[in-house]
Amino acid sequence: MIILSKQQILDKFDADAITLLLKDGFIAFSQKQVQMPPVQHLLFEQANGDCCIKSGYLQGDKLFVVKVSSGFYHNPAQGLASNQGVMMAFSAQTGEPQALLLDEGWLTALRTALAGRIAAELCAPRNIRAIGIVGTGMQARLHLMYLKSVISCRQLWVWGRSETALEEYRQYAQAEGFDVNTTQNAAELARHCQLIVTTTPSREAILHAVDIQPGTHITAVGADGAGKHELAPDLVAKADKILVDSWEQCTEFGEISQAFQRGMLAHYSLTEIGVALAQNGPFRNNDQQITLADLTGLGIQDVQIVKGILE
Amino acid sequence: MIILSKQQILDKFDADAITLLLKDGFIAFSQKQVQMPPVQHLLFEQANGDCCIKSGYLQGDKLFVVKVSSGFYHNPAQGLASNQGVMMAFSAQTGEPQALLLDEGWLTALRTALAGRIAAELCAPRNIRAIGIVGTGMQARLHLMYLKSVISCRQLWVWGRSETALEEYRQYAQAEGFDVNTTQNAAELARHCQLIVTTTPSREAILHAVDIQPGTHITAVGADGAGKHELAPDLVAKADKILVDSWEQCTEFGEISQAFQRGMLAHYSLTEIGVALAQNGPFRNNDQQITLADLTGLGIQDVQIVKGILE
Repeated sequence: MIILSKQQILDKFDADAITLLLKDGFIAFSQKQVQMPPVQHLLFEQANGDCCIKSGYLQGDKLFVVKVSSGFYHNPAQGLASNQGVMMAFSAQTGEPQALLLDEGWLTALRTALAGRIAAELCAPRNIRAIGIVGTGMQARLHLMYLKSVISCRQLWVWGRSETALEEYRQYAQAEGFDVNTTQNAAELARHCQLIVTTTPSREAILHAVDIQPGTHITAVGADGAGKHELAPDLVAKADKILVDSWEQCTEFGEISQAFQRGMLAHYSLTEIGVALAQNGPFRNNDQQITLADLTGLGIQDVQIVKGILE
Repeated sequence: MIILSKQQILDKFDADAITLLLKDGFIAFSQKQVQMPPVQHLLFEQANGDCCIKSGYLQGDKLFVVKVSSGFYHNPAQGLASNQGVMMAFSAQTGEPQALLLDEGWLTALRTALAGRIAAELCAPRNIRAIGIVGTGMQARLHLMYLKSVISCRQLWVWGRSETALEEYRQYAQAEGFDVNTTQNAAELARHCQLIVTTTPSREAILHAVDIQPGTHITAVGADGAGKHELAPDLVAKADKILVDSWEQCTEFGEISQAFQRGMLAHYSLTEIGVALAQNGPFRNNDQQITLADLTGLGIQDVQIVKGILE
């Protein structure tokens, strides 16, 4: 069995090759070629931690993947990363363990950011005067890093709750080549930005319908479990077109779930990323539409990124 | 992170210490102190394989456990064991991976056999003229090995479909100190035996109501998924008392599930092992009752056996 450390994994990481694998994975998922059992959740209240276990198998593959990923939010106070985790690959011919990837949660972060880039390619309007990033953490950084290769705009607004975190993010984004404006007022960010990525684990809405201009695309990646959301249901219902990674997951616990469950999206046909990719054209019909992409994270993304590292 | 090979795991295996941990685990499970998300299943039809992923956490523990175990039934033709798998332990304080146990399915086999011994301690009648083992595989051997320490009887009947397998089992059981009778007629076995363990992955009933004498206990461990069963529903309904490892699992897919779902057990109160253990007395009321124990396997058993190996 191969055991790879985080550094060995990052050395083998090729964003463009893995993006192609992720696209194939989304398409296969929407075509029902993927086994992806319901996610297992464990809660550790005394340590402010949670863990989710995902597994997946793409029909015909030589391997299947099991991922254990957790967030323990007291860790930073001890000098440890909040996100921890491993991915494992097993032979789909014999069941034997083949590889253990001690990625410390990085592969989850990377495949999420690359899915955001895929959503931006499908949905972004042609004219972007500024990019808006909601949040200042790891996802806020990785999304910006990968958007650079598909969006030419270098004007940036970033929203956060802490002045210190905003200043740190400013330095990061300037080093990436952006002109940076920081704000603690999300509506101000929305007034200036045509491509917005929301990356926080918020449990209350940060953006509302009144904040959003026509011709905006929003990618929301924070809602990966019941109760989390960053966009008000009235904003979700205002979108002209909605892209989801999984119809089932997004309507159950994604960013759009509250609006869906209240019957506010009855007139929509939600489109899965895999369906949009198979159609091979732009998702938005014109530059005035408001589009929304809801990314909850799929086991097939873990399968594909592990294949990308091992192959 | 500690990595243990199968041999290192077997060297650390202490059956009696782990039996005590398993008893504590069953009790904690029945007292709702265990997080045990629904099992994930994957199927590999082209390789005649399947995989199940179990996880568990006993409230207050320092670690939680994830198990990946699979059966690939073409493996023996390639000189590989059918059962493959790993168990992993993670810190419940930080989420960090702590140990990888490359047990190749052994810990699952061992904790199942030890659960069978616990069921025998709770349910066996006082007078056993012969033990009956249905099946000739790994579980059939491990159950016999561990029954020896709680049952003094050394008369054995074993049922199997293949003469060769029966002969191999005879040699195994003789070396363990038993007087062995082999048969391909399960009713003949049942006529002679007061403690029967059924260990096959059969999908059709091997024993029926007419086969069983008063004063018999049967432990059934083969049914761990939908469609598998070894006992006819009329035999299940004939039992005076029924012990289950998990009310939920056993009624959904255990040995008793068919009888339960047909309404044939309406007059029963099924008793969980954890409840029976907490009552700290014998499960059967007299030596004439027919008792049945249905063991589907619980994630908490994996948690406890990993603790037993690591502590």
